[in-house]
Amino acid sequence: MTTDTILDTSYKGFPRTSPPLARSAIGSAGWHVLDGKLPLPLAVIKRSALAHNLAWMQAFVRERGIELAPHGKTTMSPELFSRQLAAGAWGLTFATVTQLAVGVAAGARRTLIANQVVTDDDLAGIQALLAAHEGLRVVFLVDSLAQLGLIEQWFAAHPASQLFEVMLEVGVPGARTGCRTQDEAATLARALKASTAVRLAGIECYEGGGATGRSDHDAAYADALMTRVEAIARLCAEEALFENDEVLLSAGGSAIFDLVADRLTPALGRPVRGLLRSGCYVTHDHGNYKRLLASVAERCGCTETLLPALEVWAAVQSRPEPGLAILTCGRRDISYDLEMPIPFARAPRGVLAPQAIPASWKITALNDQHAYLRWDAADEASAPVVGERIGLGISHPCTTFDKWHWMPIVEDDYRVTDAVTLHF
Amino acid sequence: MTTDTILDTSYKGFPRTSPPLARSAIGSAGWHVLDGKLPLPLAVIKRSALAHNLAWMQAFVRERGIELAPHGKTTMSPELFSRQLAAGAWGLTFATVTQLAVGVAAGARRTLIANQVVTDDDLAGIQALLAAHEGLRVVFLVDSLAQLGLIEQWFAAHPASQLFEVMLEVGVPGARTGCRTQDEAATLARALKASTAVRLAGIECYEGGGATGRSDHDAAYADALMTRVEAIARLCAEEALFENDEVLLSAGGSAIFDLVADRLTPALGRPVRGLLRSGCYVTHDHGNYKRLLASVAERCGCTETLLPALEVWAAVQSRPEPGLAILTCGRRDISYDLEMPIPFARAPRGVLAPQAIPASWKITALNDQHAYLRWDAADEASAPVVGERIGLGISHPCTTFDKWHWMPIVEDDYRVTDAVTLHF
Repeated sequence: MTTDTILDTSYKGFPRTSPPLARSAIGSAGWHVLDGKLPLPLAVIKRSALAHNLAWMQAFVRERGIELAPHGKTTMSPELFSRQLAAGAWGLTFATVTQLAVGVAAGARRTLIANQVVTDDDLAGIQALLAAHEGLRVVFLVDSLAQLGLIEQWFAAHPASQLFEVMLEVGVPGARTGCRTQDEAATLARALKASTAVRLAGIECYEGGGATGRSDHDAAYADALMTRVEAIARLCAEEALFENDEVLLSAGGSAIFDLVADRLTPALGRPVRGLLRSGCYVTHDHGNYKRLLASVAERCGCTETLLPALEVWAAVQSRPEPGLAILTCGRRDISYDLEMPIPFARAPRGVLAPQAIPASWKITALNDQHAYLRWDAADEASAPVVGERIGLGISHPCTTFDKWHWMPIVEDDYRVTDAVTLHF
Repeated sequence: MTTDTILDTSYKGFPRTSPPLARSAIGSAGWHVLDGKLPLPLAVIKRSALAHNLAWMQAFVRERGIELAPHGKTTMSPELFSRQLAAGAWGLTFATVTQLAVGVAAGARRTLIANQVVTDDDLAGIQALLAAHEGLRVVFLVDSLAQLGLIEQWFAAHPASQLFEVMLEVGVPGARTGCRTQDEAATLARALKASTAVRLAGIECYEGGGATGRSDHDAAYADALMTRVEAIARLCAEEALFENDEVLLSAGGSAIFDLVADRLTPALGRPVRGLLRSGCYVTHDHGNYKRLLASVAERCGCTETLLPALEVWAAVQSRPEPGLAILTCGRRDISYDLEMPIPFARAPRGVLAPQAIPASWKITALNDQHAYLRWDAADEASAPVVGERIGLGISHPCTTFDKWHWMPIVEDDYRVTDAVTLHF
């Protein structure tokens, strides 16, 4: 399904001494992240951790009788989409119609847009994809009569179109989108049933915005939200507002997904498909999600959860004063929206195997193209040296992926054995 | 020089109802940002403000007897590089060898890398470009004997290479890269002269990291730094450490460039070319640089300086509760490293001309794909409506450009009359 993109030196991270190569040929080119022939900075995905995460999350939903429609916005990678579908994902989720088009081109046929679609161009884009791909299913969110009015306006002007499949979004006061009250949701559900432009396929919510990592808070938050989701789903079932036999119930970020997973298959007197939309699980991280998954593990009694699979390697370009190194890696290369990158290893020039670093090493700031690595005075003797390579963990996969057009897949010893492309 | 890229719906912001179009054909396609046929969010560049900024900055350096080597990392746009060179820029600056390669492909022949180059692959990349492009000049920064050692090591292993042209970087304690003391700089300058791998072409510093917007502080900061630059330049001239007849002296971000511009042509007893490297001036912004340029205007006694040329338009997708609208624009679309986007206009559906907005409108948060627009209770009656378009100003051009692969150039009435591509 996926085009075999030809990569060359115009792609950040592609070695300048290599001829152009098809993506599928990179894995057999004999590259190694730390042998000095790949440019730095370089974002890499560890194959073993990726495979572990794909299997772990699939087992998680299977054990709970629900399915996965992972959020594609995290990676926007056709090759990772394929792996997610091959691992058993029911479908894929996207945030925008542009992302949806990339996913459909990559072979996705059951798709969610976890967002309100409101503009004429977006509605036209969905119809164009539906018309071009027999069997494609696209379900997007509605949370207001105003939005429904725009959809109906567009539909009236394009009468030969297919009905839009939608889920009603339930939201939380103070949070993002979604109906704030049950009255509002009930009124909207009835209007969706009455509309000749849409089919109500299910109920949706996003619990991730309320996650704190404190189980008492998060459990109460998720419980209250899912109780509302269940109530409106029951009302829609009782009033026969759903237009398909099977009802979709969907929730799920990557933070407290365990607290909603068991609530996605309530008895509604008809088939219910529970869909978890987690996206970040695929590579996990060394920061925000690592901390959040510690709470998931505690609640689930799991001995293992997800593994960090995404790293960025950079070189030390300057050691201008004691306690400070400047690395060749900046806001263009690595996440900074939740916290600074997290150094976890070093590889002196000529050394292929990463080594441990002092605990005091911290990234304290990023510029567009630079990172500031600092350490305690007690660690000055083991300070990094110019030309040395530093491994950086990330916090929040989405905002590292979107800074690259491709990434190598590496073994645990940093040999490059595959590659993926990214389409933001 | 520049390829005429074919754009299609895989490019974020390209209209889904349009067939693929060459970049050069977009200007005559009759598009309009606010007629509902272009997808949102969409980042746009205003032609009149862009032209003003190109001319203003060129006049600024001309009046001071120096030249412009604008930092290409801001836009990474071959079409904007061409405009900068056509406006009279001496050359272009880049942060990395990957960026350099894009610039050289776009026709740049006098280039600076305002960074330490340290890795084998980067050094090889520069040599490959030099070998492939007759007359290409690449000058990069050196700030340590350790770095020089790496360059010499590489050079010894590749004896048929051209000498690397370098500038010695003078830095400020507590800031980024660059020699912290005059002793250190003098020792390095003598080592560069003695090296058979490099030619010392000039002295460089970056004053922008110390800018605060308070003229008393900034003037003292820039003066102290430029006094040190001049001192080491004088020492190098006296000791005949420069290897070219003409010495390059370079400084310049986009924050307090006026405070260094007059210091780039000291009397050294030989020709001196002062090079300012500002990058953000090309589109300027509605935030950080707007505030900083107010101080520049005050110091220069200018009645006008730069104009904000970069905007992002988004749609209201939800109005879930009083005082809150959610927009179709997030961390993937707009700068957030210095501050949140700045709403400045609205365009109700069906209206082509932006209208004024209440002063209380603020973006209070961004998610990956969403913006949170809030306002005071007193402005609830004029609240945005679902489907309405909101114009967002940005703070820091670099981190908006790097979220797009192309941008339309628009007239003041938002007709699309040209387009540029972006290569990050």
